[in-house]
Amino acid sequence: MRPISIETGVTKHAEGSCMIKVGDTHVLCTATIEERVPPFMRNSGQGWVTAEYGMLPRATNTRMRREAAAGKQGGRTVEIQRLIGRSLRAGVDRQALGERQITVDCDVIQADGGTRCASITGGWVALRLAVNKLLKAGDITTDPLLAPVAAVSCGIYAGQTVLDLDYPEDSEAGVDGNFVMTGAGRLIEVQMSAEGATFTHEQMARLMELADKGVSELVEAQKAAVA
Amino acid sequence: MRPISIETGVTKHAEGSCMIKVGDTHVLCTATIEERVPPFMRNSGQGWVTAEYGMLPRATNTRMRREAAAGKQGGRTVEIQRLIGRSLRAGVDRQALGERQITVDCDVIQADGGTRCASITGGWVALRLAVNKLLKAGDITTDPLLAPVAAVSCGIYAGQTVLDLDYPEDSEAGVDGNFVMTGAGRLIEVQMSAEGATFTHEQMARLMELADKGVSELVEAQKAAVA
Amino acid sequence: MRPISIETGVTKHAEGSCMIKVGDTHVLCTATIEERVPPFMRNSGQGWVTAEYGMLPRATNTRMRREAAAGKQGGRTVEIQRLIGRSLRAGVDRQALGERQITVDCDVIQADGGTRCASITGGWVALRLAVNKLLKAGDITTDPLLAPVAAVSCGIYAGQTVLDLDYPEDSEAGVDGNFVMTGAGRLIEVQMSAEGATFTHEQMARLMELADKGVSELVEAQKAAVA
Amino acid sequence: MRPISIETGVTKHAEGSCMIKVGDTHVLCTATIEERVPPFMRNSGQGWVTAEYGMLPRATNTRMRREAAAGKQGGRTVEIQRLIGRSLRAGVDRQALGERQITVDCDVIQADGGTRCASITGGWVALRLAVNKLLKAGDITTDPLLAPVAAVSCGIYAGQTVLDLDYPEDSEAGVDGNFVMTGAGRLIEVQMSAEGATFTHEQMARLMELADKGVSELVEAQKAAVA
Amino acid sequence: MRPISIETGVTKHAEGSCMIKVGDTHVLCTATIEERVPPFMRNSGQGWVTAEYGMLPRATNTRMRREAAAGKQGGRTVEIQRLIGRSLRAGVDRQALGERQITVDCDVIQADGGTRCASITGGWVALRLAVNKLLKAGDITTDPLLAPVAAVSCGIYAGQTVLDLDYPEDSEAGVDGNFVMTGAGRLIEVQMSAEGATFTHEQMARLMELADKGVSELVEAQKAAVA
Amino acid sequence: MRPISIETGVTKHAEGSCMIKVGDTHVLCTATIEERVPPFMRNSGQGWVTAEYGMLPRATNTRMRREAAAGKQGGRTVEIQRLIGRSLRAGVDRQALGERQITVDCDVIQADGGTRCASITGGWVALRLAVNKLLKAGDITTDPLLAPVAAVSCGIYAGQTVLDLDYPEDSEAGVDGNFVMTGAGRLIEVQMSAEGATFTHEQMARLMELADKGVSELVEAQKAAVA
Repeated sequence: MRPISIETGVTKHAEGSCMIKVGDTHVLCTATIEERVPPFMRNSGQGWVTAEYGMLPRATNTRMRREAAAGKQGGRTVEIQRLIGRSLRAGVDRQALGERQITVDCDVIQADGGTRCASITGGWVALRLAVNKLLKAGDITTDPLLAPVAAVSCGIYAGQTVLDLDYPEDSEAGVDGNFVMTGAGRLIEVQMSAEGATFTHEQMARLMELADKGVSELVEAQKAAVA
Repeated sequence: MRPISIETGVTKHAEGSCMIKVGDTHVLCTATIEERVPPFMRNSGQGWVTAEYGMLPRATNTRMRREAAAGKQGGRTVEIQRLIGRSLRAGVDRQALGERQITVDCDVIQADGGTRCASITGGWVALRLAVNKLLKAGDITTDPLLAPVAAVSCGIYAGQTVLDLDYPEDSEAGVDGNFVMTGAGRLIEVQMSAEGATFTHEQMARLMELADKGVSELVEAQKAAVA
Repeated sequence: MRPISIETGVTKHAEGSCMIKVGDTHVLCTATIEERVPPFMRNSGQGWVTAEYGMLPRATNTRMRREAAAGKQGGRTVEIQRLIGRSLRAGVDRQALGERQITVDCDVIQADGGTRCASITGGWVALRLAVNKLLKAGDITTDPLLAPVAAVSCGIYAGQTVLDLDYPEDSEAGVDGNFVMTGAGRLIEVQMSAEGATFTHEQMARLMELADKGVSELVEAQKAAVA
Repeated sequence: MRPISIETGVTKHAEGSCMIKVGDTHVLCTATIEERVPPFMRNSGQGWVTAEYGMLPRATNTRMRREAAAGKQGGRTVEIQRLIGRSLRAGVDRQALGERQITVDCDVIQADGGTRCASITGGWVALRLAVNKLLKAGDITTDPLLAPVAAVSCGIYAGQTVLDLDYPEDSEAGVDGNFVMTGAGRLIEVQMSAEGATFTHEQMARLMELADKGVSELVEAQKAAVA
Repeated sequence: MRPISIETGVTKHAEGSCMIKVGDTHVLCTATIEERVPPFMRNSGQGWVTAEYGMLPRATNTRMRREAAAGKQGGRTVEIQRLIGRSLRAGVDRQALGERQITVDCDVIQADGGTRCASITGGWVALRLAVNKLLKAGDITTDPLLAPVAAVSCGIYAGQTVLDLDYPEDSEAGVDGNFVMTGAGRLIEVQMSAEGATFTHEQMARLMELADKGVSELVEAQKAAVA
Repeated sequence: MRPISIETGVTKHAEGSCMIKVGDTHVLCTATIEERVPPFMRNSGQGWVTAEYGMLPRATNTRMRREAAAGKQGGRTVEIQRLIGRSLRAGVDRQALGERQITVDCDVIQADGGTRCASITGGWVALRLAVNKLLKAGDITTDPLLAPVAAVSCGIYAGQTVLDLDYPEDSEAGVDGNFVMTGAGRLIEVQMSAEGATFTHEQMARLMELADKGVSELVEAQKAAVA
């Protein structure tokens, strides 16, 4: 694992925020509370947690086209923000949250591999801080957050199973993916993809072991940050 | 597993085509060969395989808005067609294919769960038939298809690990996902997602065993269809 | 006229459906009943019938770009679906239908000329079946369908007036068009267009005679299908 | 027929232009010559004539949303501009025009029914003037315009066949349409549509006779304008 | 200043309208009254004045792409219509107007520099005429128009400060801009921009003097037009 | 003036970068060098400088919709990025820059008024650093930056002319605007806008004096940052 740092309270407007740095990958995560839910949730008594993801045009080595200028979010962006939202919701008791929405925005300031995992890990910290605000204000009485949620990437690079790939490793890896887990070691999302390659059940098992270790370390960093 | 049927040669224009039925899920798969590659592949001496996915508006129980009328493909569609393309490419020697593109279109005529898995399984059959045409015409001499590629869904429904979920099961399952594998039993893609739930390493292992069985059955059906 | 076949009940979800085949042109038509009308019809006591049209990307000889991926429906698609909707509405007593909407989706599975005419003819069959369901359930008591509606293409090809053009004829014809008529021989829509050519009043009269015969044959096929 | 006036040379930039007034319907038509053709015409030795149509937001009784602000041209606009382009091309020898494009823009300044017919009639005048410029400059030697092209609307209103409908008539007519013809009395486009009604072959024949008369009058006005 | 002409009542549908000509720049301005306000103004007791701007494709020397066909309004269009709306609102007592909206559409028929200034000057005339209608009908009792609003362009061209630039001057000017003022000589908007150049405080002061003179002349023309 | 801080080199990928803080307004500015120019500049021997502007969704007090998700850049964004680009170009000798493009991205991390001015001031620092890299590498030999470019907002708030408005002041000000100037005190852009108000020539003159002072202070901060 690359060095992890999570700085909280980095923006004055958001209900919860942090800057997470995993190696040279830096993501600004903010959580916004709104007293409304999407149409399909109205009058359900339950809340909603969703996420949006973006990358600054020059977060990467060569400048990428700004999605707002291109007129739409690319397939990769859509896929990532759906993953972040689903992952965070898995750790939330939506009944306890009450009929309100929390939107977690993850914006990549600098990218060096693993931006979606850093977004989930940092996004949970922003969510935790926003929920703390609701609890402190007495808007809710039961904590809706069931457990910390964190994510780590891993892959098979030059024949070896590796954890927390940086960009050069990631772009060379024939197999890579992400494990999203709770602080209690339960699985939320497992995604392993091969591009022009395949992998064995044994490799899959080894990647899972690595991921367990990585997530433990991330959850420690989360706990320290929100303490 | 629900009953599987694969009928080939269902449209007169496409280089390869089949209608795959997995239970009440019916997907029309066509493969189109074009003697050009996307800009990022030009002069690489390698070919490209890509996929597009769509659902007829009334393939589902209630009518969905036509994506062409809505003016964009939804996030779910984008996610699925990226998965199909990635999965099929994992079974292709792109050097042997030569600098040409094969586009696999998967259009869901009737949906009852597992449309993305049926698309991958049927898509490979269409791809196989199109490649056979190239081989027969002498356009290529080495078969670029390394192994059959098939996919099966599985999930945890009412506390139990189940294979090949239909729509009612799928919409109730707290955890579901897809396994894409080769006919030789190697993994291409593993995707397990929890929505408002979590799962254990043991459950993950059991799902993997189920998937092995399901994919074996699908590969038999593929072999019979293209024989 | 090319051989006509109409198979009903081809999809389990739609209130009415058929696969119409006119020669090598195959169109899947479904009718969806919704208990709401567009904003401009609310509180009018009248219903609405509308249509949407699409072509699978490889319905044609060379693959066409998927309209959902292109981000909009092309001019030809818009023109065709407006024609289908208008044609079907001409045969409907919208007061008798009551304040509900029926959407007829026509998706071309395989194209060989005359897809808009096949869509109208098959679309009416799907509409008929959906309306039968409403009548049987007692949701309406007066049949809102005034007469069958069917359409046939014709044109001037190699100097001769011809009926029911297939794709090679259609693409060579300097003049072509469509006649939409009721089973009682009344006109609903007459569209003759010249592209880089002109035609005489006499030719127009001959085309009309041909169309009368073609529509009679189509209406027979419709009656047999819904019997 | 309502009074017709055609004023030419109304804008200093366009190669050909006129303001056509048919009753209270006023359309500004301009023709632009460009020394290039669309990709599908390149190296064909033939030219192309195309048209675009628009309506100022307050050309109508109540303000319509500006299409540029809405982000797309509506179905009606697309249908109309395809009709104008097709109609004008029917009167052009594209070989004689040479490999260049003429774009005819028809913008409705004030609408009172029959805007598409006025656009075709006025559009031909703008086209004629632009082509005259090419002939005068010696850029082409053979006149590519085969015959004048003009259009008139007609319909069935209050049980009677009528010519050149104004807006109140048009919006009440159960059947209406357009006839596009050459100055020599040959047909280019026949479009009769019923909305919630049907019509007979006899009515169709009467409408055609009316149209013959209307077009004759329009062609006289065109000839006077370009003289 | 180039010759100014303002003809009122040029379209039969709009509540207020004029054709303003400043030299060879011709803009059609219409004002539409609607008894509704945008969502952010509801129940405020105040009205709203907004503007939209467009250019016919061949208003310019070479044909520009139609914005409706391009699928969006360009940056220049958006900037201009925001300026027109802001400028007109500065001269309106929105309380006196009451909760209704007036939309001023400015469509450039022929362009030769200064189209945004002509739009503001002519737009105010259309607004004045529409408001007169409300006053005459007794819908409002206090005149909400505080003062005439007019605009003039100026710039530095070939080293000299000049007023009311035509297109050749404008495209050569290193510095140009617009002054929007009331008939009473108060400022509403000052916009001076350098492109690849800079300017001094002294030049700025001289431009302001020129603008004072130009606006006086325009306000005289406005008064004469609405008298 | 609020406290100003400019930290350079804040991202490892961009050729030039800084984080500028003016009070609670924080903008990340990056400059990207590309060895290509837009089509309209090709083979001109001159370079191009352009800018893009964005705001993170929760940079503001309440969350704004992400422009990439909305599918387009809003009018305000377009207006601002055109201003930034124009302003920076005014300080560049594009011949000396050579045929390459520098894109300055300004992304607002936290907003409290004056984001466009902070973007110009910080954007120039990023541009300076990127150009220094070109000079150091010997890619260019003459410094293309003619003078520092900085911008300050000012307005009339509660009857008083004020400099560098924060968000509460800005949203209450009836008149506000921006002055863009060079380090040598020459003007580049003057924009004063009244919303529902007007202002006098005397007020304009006082605002200009204030702006002179503000820009001097900003230029000092720029010089210190790039030293």
